[in-house]
Amino acid sequence: MVEARRSARSFLPEPIPESVLTACFDVAIRAPSSHNLEIWRFLDVRNAETRAALNHLCLDQPQAQQAANLIVAVARPDLWRLGAERMLARLRADAREGAADADYRVWLPRLKKKYELMVPLLFADGPLHVLAPAKAALLWAIGQFRPMMRGPIGRSEQQMWAVKTTALACENFMLALVAAGYDSCPLEGFDEPKVKRLFALPSEARVVMVIAAGRRGPHALIPQIRHERGFYVERV
Amino acid sequence: MVEARRSARSFLPEPIPESVLTACFDVAIRAPSSHNLEIWRFLDVRNAETRAALNHLCLDQPQAQQAANLIVAVARPDLWRLGAERMLARLRADAREGAADADYRVWLPRLKKKYELMVPLLFADGPLHVLAPAKAALLWAIGQFRPMMRGPIGRSEQQMWAVKTTALACENFMLALVAAGYDSCPLEGFDEPKVKRLFALPSEARVVMVIAAGRRGPHALIPQIRHERGFYVERV
Repeated sequence: MVEARRSARSFLPEPIPESVLTACFDVAIRAPSSHNLEIWRFLDVRNAETRAALNHLCLDQPQAQQAANLIVAVARPDLWRLGAERMLARLRADAREGAADADYRVWLPRLKKKYELMVPLLFADGPLHVLAPAKAALLWAIGQFRPMMRGPIGRSEQQMWAVKTTALACENFMLALVAAGYDSCPLEGFDEPKVKRLFALPSEARVVMVIAAGRRGPHALIPQIRHERGFYVERV
Repeated sequence: MVEARRSARSFLPEPIPESVLTACFDVAIRAPSSHNLEIWRFLDVRNAETRAALNHLCLDQPQAQQAANLIVAVARPDLWRLGAERMLARLRADAREGAADADYRVWLPRLKKKYELMVPLLFADGPLHVLAPAKAALLWAIGQFRPMMRGPIGRSEQQMWAVKTTALACENFMLALVAAGYDSCPLEGFDEPKVKRLFALPSEARVVMVIAAGRRGPHALIPQIRHERGFYVERV
C-alpha cells in the first residue's frame, strides 16, 4: 500500500463513492494524535462555487482542477483547549461508569490529571500568546538543571505542533485511498491566506495541505526518485 | 495495519532484527516528500552511552527506557539546497542517458527547470534568512493581484514545512513496524534543545519526534479515544 501510493499528476472525473471517502476519514484519524487533542480538521469541499474558488487558489494546477474531490487538511492549534475538555468529559464518564478494560482503569486517574493539569500547563500562554516569552524563559531556566519539555509555546510553535499531528493523519488518509483503489496528490502550491479566508478559518489555523483525490488519469505517474538509504538514515 | 497501529506504553527487551528496521526505513521514505527535497533524516540510536543520554532527555519515560530501539526523526529544512542539487544531478543524468519511461521523458525538461529556477526562488531567503521579510512583503504585494504561494520563507516557516514532510514519513515508518509485527510509540516529551546538542544538529533542524520501537510489553495499550466523525470532518 505504501509503495502503491504515488502522487498522481492527472485524474479522471470519476467520483469517489461516499462510503469510501467516509471510511478513509475514519482511517485518517487512527493516526497518533498528540496528547489526543485531535486538533486535525478536514474540509470536504463539495459546493461547486467554493470548489471553483479553491481550484483557483491552488493556482489552477491541473491536479486540483481534475480531481473528483479536494480535501483541505487544516491544523487547528487553537482548539487544544476544546480537545482537552472533551477528553476530560469522556474520561470522567468512563470513570463513573467503570471502564471494562483493566489497563484503562489503572490509567484513568493519571489520564484525568494529565488533562486537568499537565495539558493546560503545557499549552496555556495567555490571550494572544502574551505569556509565551515569559514561559519560554522559565522553561529555559528549569532546563539548566534538568531535561525539560519546551512547549509548544507561542503561536508558531503551537502551529508547528498541530501541523505535525495533522500530517500524520494526512498520510493515513492517502494510504486509505490507495487501499480502496483511489489516488491522491498532496498539494502545497496554494495561497494559504486566501484559502483561510475562503473557509473563514481563524488566524491561528494552518492549511497543512490540499489533497486532490480521485481515480488516476493517463500519464499520471513519473518515477519516484529517492536517494540511497545512507543519505537519510544515520546510525549513532 | 492502520487500525493495528497503537501507541505502546510498554515494551519487551526483544530487539528488532536489522533487516526489519532497514525495511521500515525504506517504507518510511516512500511518503510524499515536498518538492522531493528529502529533508527528512533518521538517527538510529545504537551507541549505549548515547542511548542512555537520550533516555534521560526523553524525561526518563518508561517507553523510552524500555524500547529496544529509539529512532530520532529530524527535519532538516537547511538541507533544501542539497536536495535540489541532488535532484538536478539525477535529472540531468536521466536526460543524458534517455529515460525509459515515456511520461518521465515528457516531464524531464519541466522538472529540471523546477529545480534550477523555481525551488531556489521559493526557498532562498539569504544568509540567516535576512531577506525573508522583504520576500514575504513582495509575495504579499503580488498576492493582492493573483493567488500566490507564500513560501515557505523564513526560519520558522521552513521548519514547519520540513516538520510536515518528515511527519508523513514517520507515520509510514510506524505503519511498517506494525506490518512487521512490531510496535512503536511516538514521543514528543523530550528536551529538544538538548537532544539537538546531543546529536550536534544545526540550529535550523527540528526534532520531529523520538520513535520508541520494539515488541509491545504487558498492559501496553489503553483504548484509543476518538471523537465522532462530525467533530473533525466538515462538508463545505
